[in-house]
Amino acid sequence: MTTHRIAVIPGDGIGKEVVPAGIEALEATAGRFGIGLEFDTFDFASADYWQRHGTMLPPDWEETLRAYDAIYFGAVGWPEVVPDHISLWGSLLQFRRTFDQYVNLRPCRLMPGVRSPLAGREPGDIDFVVVRENTEGEYSSIGGRIFEGTDRETVLQETVMTRVGIDRVLRFAYEQAARRPESHLTSATKSNGISITMPYWDERVAAMQEQFPGVRVDKFHIDALVALFVLHPDRFDVVVASNLFGDILSDLGPACTGTLGIAPSANINPERDHPSLFEPVHGSAPDIAGRGIANPIGQIWCGSMMLDHLGHPEAAAHLLGAIEDVLAYGPGEAPLTPDLHGKGTTAELGHAIAERV
Amino acid sequence: MTTHRIAVIPGDGIGKEVVPAGIEALEATAGRFGIGLEFDTFDFASADYWQRHGTMLPPDWEETLRAYDAIYFGAVGWPEVVPDHISLWGSLLQFRRTFDQYVNLRPCRLMPGVRSPLAGREPGDIDFVVVRENTEGEYSSIGGRIFEGTDRETVLQETVMTRVGIDRVLRFAYEQAARRPESHLTSATKSNGISITMPYWDERVAAMQEQFPGVRVDKFHIDALVALFVLHPDRFDVVVASNLFGDILSDLGPACTGTLGIAPSANINPERDHPSLFEPVHGSAPDIAGRGIANPIGQIWCGSMMLDHLGHPEAAAHLLGAIEDVLAYGPGEAPLTPDLHGKGTTAELGHAIAERV
Ligand SMILES: CC(C)[C@H](C(=O)O)[C@@H](O)C(=O)O
Ligand SMILES: CC(C)[C@H](C(=O)O)[C@@H](O)C(=O)O
Repeated sequence: MTTHRIAVIPGDGIGKEVVPAGIEALEATAGRFGIGLEFDTFDFASADYWQRHGTMLPPDWEETLRAYDAIYFGAVGWPEVVPDHISLWGSLLQFRRTFDQYVNLRPCRLMPGVRSPLAGREPGDIDFVVVRENTEGEYSSIGGRIFEGTDRETVLQETVMTRVGIDRVLRFAYEQAARRPESHLTSATKSNGISITMPYWDERVAAMQEQFPGVRVDKFHIDALVALFVLHPDRFDVVVASNLFGDILSDLGPACTGTLGIAPSANINPERDHPSLFEPVHGSAPDIAGRGIANPIGQIWCGSMMLDHLGHPEAAAHLLGAIEDVLAYGPGEAPLTPDLHGKGTTAELGHAIAERV
Repeated sequence: MTTHRIAVIPGDGIGKEVVPAGIEALEATAGRFGIGLEFDTFDFASADYWQRHGTMLPPDWEETLRAYDAIYFGAVGWPEVVPDHISLWGSLLQFRRTFDQYVNLRPCRLMPGVRSPLAGREPGDIDFVVVRENTEGEYSSIGGRIFEGTDRETVLQETVMTRVGIDRVLRFAYEQAARRPESHLTSATKSNGISITMPYWDERVAAMQEQFPGVRVDKFHIDALVALFVLHPDRFDVVVASNLFGDILSDLGPACTGTLGIAPSANINPERDHPSLFEPVHGSAPDIAGRGIANPIGQIWCGSMMLDHLGHPEAAAHLLGAIEDVLAYGPGEAPLTPDLHGKGTTAELGHAIAERV
């Protein structure tokens, strides 16, 4: 039995509350499938750490985390103590680049017992995944300000796209599509308006297509695409997008399925040269932190994605199935948390899922 | 009676079909309110013109159009004949910049008889307007490609934001908000990721706020905002956004209200130094063009926005009311077009609205 070493970073707010539930579910699944998991917990990448040290990370964070097969992350951000641009650029966005986690993967799926804001949609109708480029593009920190404080004040920021950067995420997306029954890839563009970088993106999509003749490809401008997410979310299978467009689509998708509060995300280095990071989408949620009522499903679902990445697709599917079973019981039979109209606590819902495993 | 001179550009596809219905409704409204309108029609900014002349516009287009108080536009784009980036940058995007139409205004409104894709929403629930910056930002054409054809290939595109450019659209948005009962302005940002231009945008929003103490202001990152459009569209009143974010939000908003096929847009130069342009959102719709079944409501609603811009708010409201009345009759009593589950033609629905005026 190989043992996978997992670095656990609970971070801020409800991150600290949902991570234990996630570990409980992971241990149950690992036990059942004979997978070895070893967890070490770190206190950095949090507002507490910032208050004590004045930095988000210790100097040797990179070496430390490199020793692990994956990072199981709660949430970072506590604006009362440290401004978001410092906490995020000083931890999460730093991890993505240093560990070349160039794929951000986010499933968008209607789940049983979860109400979608869209009329007339049923579980099974919507089940797609957004593949977001996660290291370059619109998130470059290159640019600046000139004529400061005057009427001529002008601010520039450069979008940077490279062949290497685009091709590797496209390859991942094509591979995902090729593996799925529908084999359908949708590319987000805006080449009619963003007239230099986006036509290049389109070119690379077309070039890569030659290597995946079995994948059906289409593309939509981002404005049309957000509309389609609302009007025809059932049309999508794998959606690939630049850093910014992927950020937008991977919040909009879970919003359409009603799962924004329970959606997972995976920041992946597909070559496994560096650890990948698994983090729920919900963030630290200052408004409900400390009350023990946060929904742990996003964190547990992240565990399922982590198992898949570590080479255990069956265990991953089993854990996701356990989540869906407990959701399907509904608030009458399962200790669902208040966001799901139940009266359960974080810990109770976590136990229920771990037991179901 | 002042007479307003209107340049009519039907353009491509269904543009040519819906514009006559729009003019009919405008003439009926003008007659009722004693407003003078004079229409001249131009054939440029169309694929036909491109085929005959090899350009989208005649050399003297700017002088020609400057003589008018407003431009009443159908749709441009016919990719079979001329690629979109040529037809759009050679006409519409050109007009926006040359005539400093720095505000793009798009109402998002649940209409009677129009089905929203969102569950449980009724007319009256959703009624907001997106104010989009329309001349700078992410749509700059500055940048380029280096190391072409090699593995090092890199593409750059600059986002350019100026104090003048941001402040003038913010002022317009604040003024809109101040005039509405809720006096609520929402700003779209992404300062946690797009770390140079968007923090500057936020700064200018805060600076302008001092001049409008009666306006309640909030801001959301664009990823959170697209989710809120789906989850709580009733929360918005006026939404202000950069060129790209505004493009995205002003398609998503009408998608959420089910009105993407009938939504209008106004490209406005608020100082009236240059003509403003009124154009439905739907585009040239090659799939249904030539069949006489396109829904003319977007074009007619544009007419209402144009009347408002020309200083006739009552006439504008009356025309919008006529549209709503006819929609409320439903396909049984009104000649609604097939997209609204009726059997009416473009001309029949246009007549019905003109009569109702
Ligand atoms: C056609 C395209 C360039 C244009 C834009 O993005 O501005 C359109 O989407 C719009 O919103 O008017
Ligand atoms: C916090 C923010 C910088 C981040 C992003 O935009 O990448 C977040 O929205 C995400 O999607 O992980």
